[in-house]
Amino acid sequence: MKVNVKNNETGVFALGGLGEIGKNMYGVQFQDEIILMDAGIKFPEDDLLGIDYVIPDFSYIIQNQSKIKGLFITHGHEDHIGGIPFLLKQINVPIYASKLALSLIRNKLEEHHLLRDAELHEINEDSVISFRKTSVSYYRTTHSIPEAFGIVVKTPSGNIVFTGDYKFDFTPIGETADLHKIARIGEEGVLLMLGDSTNSEIPGFTKSEQVVNQAIHNIIRKVDGRIIFATFASNVSRLSMVVEVAKKVGRKVAVFGRSMENSFKTAREIGYIDAPDDLFIRGNELNQYPASEVIILCTGSQGEPMAALSRIANGTHRQIHIQPGDTVIFSSSPIPGNTTSVNRVINLLSEAGANVIHGKVNNIHTSGHGSQEEQKLMLRLLKPKYFMPVHGEYRMQKVQAKTAQSVGVKKENCFILKNGDVLAVTDHSARFAGHFTADDVYVDGKGIGDIGNIVLKDRKVLSQDGLVIVVSTVDFAHNTLLAGPDILSRGFIYMRESGDLLHHAQSVIRHEILNQLNSGQKTNVRNLRRGIIDALQPFLYEQTERNPMILPVILGVDDKAEKSKKPVKSANK
Amino acid sequence: MKVNVKNNETGVFALGGLGEIGKNMYGVQFQDEIILMDAGIKFPEDDLLGIDYVIPDFSYIIQNQSKIKGLFITHGHEDHIGGIPFLLKQINVPIYASKLALSLIRNKLEEHHLLRDAELHEINEDSVISFRKTSVSYYRTTHSIPEAFGIVVKTPSGNIVFTGDYKFDFTPIGETADLHKIARIGEEGVLLMLGDSTNSEIPGFTKSEQVVNQAIHNIIRKVDGRIIFATFASNVSRLSMVVEVAKKVGRKVAVFGRSMENSFKTAREIGYIDAPDDLFIRGNELNQYPASEVIILCTGSQGEPMAALSRIANGTHRQIHIQPGDTVIFSSSPIPGNTTSVNRVINLLSEAGANVIHGKVNNIHTSGHGSQEEQKLMLRLLKPKYFMPVHGEYRMQKVQAKTAQSVGVKKENCFILKNGDVLAVTDHSARFAGHFTADDVYVDGKGIGDIGNIVLKDRKVLSQDGLVIVVSTVDFAHNTLLAGPDILSRGFIYMRESGDLLHHAQSVIRHEILNQLNSGQKTNVRNLRRGIIDALQPFLYEQTERNPMILPVILGVDDKAEKSKKPVKSANK
Repeated sequence: MKVNVKNNETGVFALGGLGEIGKNMYGVQFQDEIILMDAGIKFPEDDLLGIDYVIPDFSYIIQNQSKIKGLFITHGHEDHIGGIPFLLKQINVPIYASKLALSLIRNKLEEHHLLRDAELHEINEDSVISFRKTSVSYYRTTHSIPEAFGIVVKTPSGNIVFTGDYKFDFTPIGETADLHKIARIGEEGVLLMLGDSTNSEIPGFTKSEQVVNQAIHNIIRKVDGRIIFATFASNVSRLSMVVEVAKKVGRKVAVFGRSMENSFKTAREIGYIDAPDDLFIRGNELNQYPASEVIILCTGSQGEPMAALSRIANGTHRQIHIQPGDTVIFSSSPIPGNTTSVNRVINLLSEAGANVIHGKVNNIHTSGHGSQEEQKLMLRLLKPKYFMPVHGEYRMQKVQAKTAQSVGVKKENCFILKNGDVLAVTDHSARFAGHFTADDVYVDGKGIGDIGNIVLKDRKVLSQDGLVIVVSTVDFAHNTLLAGPDILSRGFIYMRESGDLLHHAQSVIRHEILNQLNSGQKTNVRNLRRGIIDALQPFLYEQTERNPMILPVILGVDDKAEKSKKPVKSANK
Repeated sequence: MKVNVKNNETGVFALGGLGEIGKNMYGVQFQDEIILMDAGIKFPEDDLLGIDYVIPDFSYIIQNQSKIKGLFITHGHEDHIGGIPFLLKQINVPIYASKLALSLIRNKLEEHHLLRDAELHEINEDSVISFRKTSVSYYRTTHSIPEAFGIVVKTPSGNIVFTGDYKFDFTPIGETADLHKIARIGEEGVLLMLGDSTNSEIPGFTKSEQVVNQAIHNIIRKVDGRIIFATFASNVSRLSMVVEVAKKVGRKVAVFGRSMENSFKTAREIGYIDAPDDLFIRGNELNQYPASEVIILCTGSQGEPMAALSRIANGTHRQIHIQPGDTVIFSSSPIPGNTTSVNRVINLLSEAGANVIHGKVNNIHTSGHGSQEEQKLMLRLLKPKYFMPVHGEYRMQKVQAKTAQSVGVKKENCFILKNGDVLAVTDHSARFAGHFTADDVYVDGKGIGDIGNIVLKDRKVLSQDGLVIVVSTVDFAHNTLLAGPDILSRGFIYMRESGDLLHHAQSVIRHEILNQLNSGQKTNVRNLRRGIIDALQPFLYEQTERNPMILPVILGVDDKAEKSKKPVKSANK
């Protein structure tokens, strides 16, 4: 479908973030000026076998790269900044971000050898970046990382506000949201609001970090043994809270896990974690302190198999072994899809003798996203004319559209869009103005977008029933089977114990090959391969009720080849 | 470890169900009499690629089969009866089960062609089955399927009670628990109780089915459009409730999904679903009724990709397409591991225009298992001397042991065991008496226990990065490479777009092969294979950051073979 935004309209769109949690990337375009906001990654769901990340399809903005004024970042979380290296590999755009976010972005760009050419601008909540027709400003909000901003894009059509990720925490760790500035923005008039939908299905108000702070403080105060504290490395607010508790109760802090170490390094440099060097100890110093004097802060709160906590749980961590009296705190809640892994880690820790504290009842975790009442507060403060729920799955978007209607936004002014949809707004109108391609792009190792459905389907088949390879050498000139069929399998059955089956399979294949060779008609590699699959597949299914991938490899020898001892180039593909 | 139960002791053990949710199977042995209770399956976790079910390892009871008096079933759920066909394939034991459970077992045995030889006994809550030294009796409890029983095994050491799955629903669908009989059993004296731990981490009392009944009734009464109602096919109580509601509000019922149809057939035969034939309509009759007059009951409440609801959601169902005004009710809660799939189905239904009702806030589902207060009630009524939490993961077992202690069981009398552990009890003692092997056995297609860690590890590698096959023909007599190397890949990269990479890989391999052939020393298939893997693996990783499985196939030709045109038997394995 073509995109058709008129000259007096402002186009608003998402490259990612609509109909999904993750890879947030939004755009506002007035004539020849495009303002991009965030460029995140998404972690793949289980059925994307072997895929490392999912990123937005940047094609549309690459086509329009001359118009891009900059990429403006709301905050430093992966689902908002993780896509930047992949974007910068394709086009270089100026990046505007706060000190903390910029520092995290720099780390990324360095890893990808992109730092040298990047154009990075540090902004703060008071910055205003003006272009010919549009300008960008910010307001401070509360989330689970410091320096979380909402963005206001001024356009000739009106002001467009993207909330970023937010909650209204009146007693946060760190600074509060700038209610007064948000109120002023609302008074000035908001044409269109793009609002975070993450917790739109949850009634009420998200718990304050202060509640978590109290709960954690109480738990730690009462414990005599070691504390092992697992949370998201990206939850800088939580990390800073734990460090404060450690200082108060007089425990040393040992940090484990690469992403956790990086978070600490950055947050300490900027000052969000405020502690003297001697508060921190290394892994090999742990034994020098009594159990009651240490807190181990580690990654793995989502049950990630390679993270510190999983290795501690299954006994393979180099420095930490669970001992009776250990208390493990999961300051997190499992992301859907991770529940089984988290449960496994909890069971292992528990069996090893640790006291494991997890779950909602303990107040040891709270979301960084606002619930329904906070969404209403934001909607009431900004009182937008048009509303577009973003940052959420379809059902979350749908519920937030209803919430918006409950606080005064007109039903016909709410737009539930998909990635690639373009909304065209003026000060008195809003309409769907077309769609561009904005599908998922898969990153697997170094490959970006090279894994498609064929490869994923093959991985799926291989993962379920494995594969069987059949190798034969055929002399097509004399219609004779020179060698084979040999059978190899992987992931199908345990070959050493399946001699009979393989033997029988071999004769099924031999029979098929000889049938073709002796039919009197000329056959070829292609027919043989097809014939082998058609004969072997039902045989194997009948014997095992499994459907492995069957890969016949035929080496063909003809007269000429025989002389040169060189088989014909095989038509195996 | 050897099992050592003395002649005056009763051995109690589990073949499955400890440290896990699923494949429940417990045993009580006094001298030469073994009473088995339940034989369930477990559904595999995601990392068991391609595995259909997990069943107990029956070896221990097969070794002791002459002593087995019978298999006594508590109720007709898969995690309690699903293992029976696999058991009966190995040994024939008499089975004692209630009418409903027996009917479900019969269906299974018929499918596996085992019905003819099975020895099936129908029991009811008043049955007493006596053997020379032991006897078995029952008590009625409440769960999510009718005829759910607890089992009392009388032994010379004392009475051993296995609760089965239970909650205390005082206003159930169907009959209430037999509180008075449970009280009498407690008064008579319980030596050892094996208690259901499923909900041991949940405080309070599980909601009654009546609350769900009210909520569902209220929702359905208010809806004008079609109702699509998804729940577990095994939750016969819920099915019967929906049928009652349908009768009241005057809607016809259409049933979709094989397991749901089977449940209906069995439950109607026995009378647990009480409705005239004309209440039910077929799929092809749906169009003859207004939307307000039908309820569609279907499978797929766990987001299972092939179930009716998933096909309805993604638009591939033959007879049902979502239309505006449809209301979909998820009368279920997602099992950990299924959350992502369930969310996907909810989003699709929602996008297609359906109003989707799900989640705890709506009271449309309740657990079949009792929470902490119900566990306390059972413990208070039975007042066992010894306690063994069963039917749960380690952490659930651990919490129920604490719950038991809170209502008077001595700490040292609580035993958290693993599958295969044997507890030996007398009327005044309990001790750990050894362990037998009771690992998971995997069922994949027709194969039972033939899939081990090697095959699973291969499937894992194949699922992540696919495979690369390298085929070459080598003349070992003349140290020449006759043909190849040819490369095939599946699940690794999209080959059509990777010509350069494959070309480069080919020369890496050719170089390695020629190096070995020209080294002056004799090489062989084994060395070549090793060499190809060692050369190709780092090359592919460096190029792609992926580690596909590499399978070199070498066809070796020697002098003799050349004459007969037959390559040497390859040493590829």
